[in-house]
Amino acid sequence: MKFNYNLPINLLFGRGKINEVGKEAAKYGKKVLIVTGKNSTKKSGLLDKTINLLKQSKIEVEVFDKVSQNPVTTTVYEGVEVAKTTGCDVILGLGGGSIMDAAKSIAFSTRNPGDISDYIFGIKQGTEALPIILVPTTCGTGSEGNSFSVLTNPETKDKKSLRTNAIIAKASIVDPELMVTMPKHIIASVGFDALAHNMEAYVSKAGQPLTDIQALYGVKLIAENLPKIYNDQTDLDAWEKVSLGSTLGGMVIGVAGVTAPHGLEHPASGLRDIVHGKGLAALTPIIVEKSWQSDIEKYTNISKLLGGTNAEDCSDAIRNFLKKIHLNITLSELGIEAKDIDWMVKNCMKVSKPSITNHPKEFTLEEIKDIYYKSL
Amino acid sequence: MKFNYNLPINLLFGRGKINEVGKEAAKYGKKVLIVTGKNSTKKSGLLDKTINLLKQSKIEVEVFDKVSQNPVTTTVYEGVEVAKTTGCDVILGLGGGSIMDAAKSIAFSTRNPGDISDYIFGIKQGTEALPIILVPTTCGTGSEGNSFSVLTNPETKDKKSLRTNAIIAKASIVDPELMVTMPKHIIASVGFDALAHNMEAYVSKAGQPLTDIQALYGVKLIAENLPKIYNDQTDLDAWEKVSLGSTLGGMVIGVAGVTAPHGLEHPASGLRDIVHGKGLAALTPIIVEKSWQSDIEKYTNISKLLGGTNAEDCSDAIRNFLKKIHLNITLSELGIEAKDIDWMVKNCMKVSKPSITNHPKEFTLEEIKDIYYKSL
Repeated sequence: MKFNYNLPINLLFGRGKINEVGKEAAKYGKKVLIVTGKNSTKKSGLLDKTINLLKQSKIEVEVFDKVSQNPVTTTVYEGVEVAKTTGCDVILGLGGGSIMDAAKSIAFSTRNPGDISDYIFGIKQGTEALPIILVPTTCGTGSEGNSFSVLTNPETKDKKSLRTNAIIAKASIVDPELMVTMPKHIIASVGFDALAHNMEAYVSKAGQPLTDIQALYGVKLIAENLPKIYNDQTDLDAWEKVSLGSTLGGMVIGVAGVTAPHGLEHPASGLRDIVHGKGLAALTPIIVEKSWQSDIEKYTNISKLLGGTNAEDCSDAIRNFLKKIHLNITLSELGIEAKDIDWMVKNCMKVSKPSITNHPKEFTLEEIKDIYYKSL
Repeated sequence: MKFNYNLPINLLFGRGKINEVGKEAAKYGKKVLIVTGKNSTKKSGLLDKTINLLKQSKIEVEVFDKVSQNPVTTTVYEGVEVAKTTGCDVILGLGGGSIMDAAKSIAFSTRNPGDISDYIFGIKQGTEALPIILVPTTCGTGSEGNSFSVLTNPETKDKKSLRTNAIIAKASIVDPELMVTMPKHIIASVGFDALAHNMEAYVSKAGQPLTDIQALYGVKLIAENLPKIYNDQTDLDAWEKVSLGSTLGGMVIGVAGVTAPHGLEHPASGLRDIVHGKGLAALTPIIVEKSWQSDIEKYTNISKLLGGTNAEDCSDAIRNFLKKIHLNITLSELGIEAKDIDWMVKNCMKVSKPSITNHPKEFTLEEIKDIYYKSL
C-alpha cells in the first residue's frame, strides 16, 4: 500500500448554500467574471440571483455566457479576453460540467499565456490561476471536486483535460436546490456520468484506500437515489444524495482517474458532439462485460449496489439500471457510424492513454475496436 | 444535510516514503528546523537518516530536540527562538504526536508574535505559518492529518489545541516502517488514541457524510490490526493499516472534532501529565455506557467492528478490546485522586466545551462528575 493524496477542495454543501456566494467571493477578489451558459441560468433566475448576491457583498460583476456543451478551447480564449479587458480577479463557474470546466480553463489561461493545448498535453507547465468559485447546477461532472477541465480542440477534435491543482476551486458551493429544474433526460445523462466516475475510480489501478471508500459510497448514493429523482423531481432528500454522489465522483476521479469507459467515450463525443452521459451509457455495459474478471471483488461490490448479485452480472445490473432512467442506448443511435471507429481507436490511444492504463483489464487495440463495434 | 469540508492535506503514504523527505522539503525552503524528542529518533537512527536525506537535497538543517510528552507553551517559544535566530524557513516535525504538535505551533508562532494562548482561545487570529512537514513515528495522534496543535500551558494546566488551517502540513509523510520500533505499551496507548479519534468523530454531532465513511473505515482498520501489531511487531501489513487508520483519525477529528472522551481526558492529562491514550482507556468505556442510546445506529456499527453485537454492548466490546492490548486501566491507577475531580469538571467546561457540545448525548456537570468518579 503506497499512495499520495492531495485534493485541497473547499466544499460548502447543502440546501440554500448559494446564499454564501457573495461572502465567499469577497475573500478572493473585488470583480467576478461569471462564466455561464446561454440559457438555463437565465431562465431559472439563478444568474440574476447570483449577480444580486455578489453585489450585496460589494463585488462588481461581468458575465460571459458563451459556453456550450463540450466546450472548445477557442471559447476559453474569448473568456480570457473578457476577464483581462474588464479586470476581473475571480472566476465563478455557474452551470453544468461544461461551464465549470470552461471557467477553470479561463482562470488558468488568464495567468498562463499561449496555446492551452500545450498545457493539456504537458508540453508546458502552469502553476497558478485566478481564484475559482464553482456552483454546479447539474449533478454529473463533479468538476467542483477536482483539478480537471475537459476541453475539445475544435481543429483536431481532441477531447482531453487540463489537470493541475492550480484550478481546484477555492470554494465549491454545492446546493442541491439549484439542480431541481433540470429536465428529466439531463438528470439521467449527467447522473449516469456521476455514477460512471465513481465506478471507474473504484476499479482504477490508480485507486487507493481513501478513494475506494469514497467511490463506493458515491456508487451507493447514486444507485439508490438517481431513479428516485428521475421519477420525482421534488424529492429533495434524494437530490441531496445524488448531488453529494456527484461531487464524490469528481473527487475520486481527481485522485484515482477514470478508466476505459471515459477513455473510449471521449473520442466519440469529441468527434460527434454527443451527450457525454449517453456515450457512457452505450459503452459502459460492454466494457464491464469484458472486464469483471480482472477485479472480481470490486465488480461484485458495484453489482450488489446496483441490484445485481456478483461480478459476472455487473454489466446486466448496469443495463437494468440504465433502463430505469431510460438511458439504454447505442452509439449508432447517437450518430456514430462504423466508419468512425478506426479514427476513434486511434484518437483513444492519443487522448485517453492514462484512462486505458488505469483500467483493471489491459485492452489491446483490437479489443477496443471490438468494444466500439459491439456498442454500435 | 448541510456541511463544509476543507482539509487540504498532502499525504505521502507507504513504506520507504521517508526517502522523499529531502525532495519535499526543497519545495518549501532552504533551511529546515527539525523538531524532535530527546531520545527515540536518535536511538533509532531516524534523525541522522533524515538529516542526511535533507542534506542530499542541499538543505541546511538545525535540530531542536527539547520536546517532551504533552508539550508546553514555553517549549514552543524556545523552538521559535531557534527558528528565528538560525533563519530556518521550514519546520519539520519528526516524532510522535507531541513532537508534531510542537512543530506546528513553532511554525505558527514564528509568524504570529505574542502569547500563543491568545490564539488558542480565539482572542487573536493568525493566518499564516512557516511551511510544515510532518513525519509521524507513532500511529496515534493523527496530527499529520489535521490543523490541530494540542499544547499545555504550564501555569494554568490548560490543555487545549490551536486550530487553524495555517498549520496543516504542506506534506505529511506517513511511513509505517518508521513506527515498528515503538515499545509495546506505547503501541497500545497511541493506537487506542487513534481508535478513539475515529470513534469520537464518527458519533460527533459535527460529523458529516465524508467524515462518517472515513471514520468508520478508520475504526475497522484499527480494530482489526492493532492487536496484531501489539502481538507481532514485524507484521508490516498490519502496521500499514493501523498507521492509515491513525492518519484517518487525525483527518476526521480535523473536520468533525472529538467528543466527550477526549473532552474529559484533557483535564486529566493536563493536570497529572498522564499518558493520553491511557486516560482515554480509563474514560471511554464509561462514557460509551452512558451514551449509546443517543445514537444507536452508529454505536452498533462501532460495536460490531470491535467484536460486539449491538449498541448496548459497545462499551463491553471496547473493554474487551482494551484487554487484548493490556490497556484496561483506571484513572486511579494513573494517579488521579477523588480530590482532583472538582478541578477537572471545571477545567473540562473551560477547555473542552466544543468536545462536550459535539457529543451525541448532552452531559450535565453532575453526569461528568459521575463519569470521573466511575473511572477512578
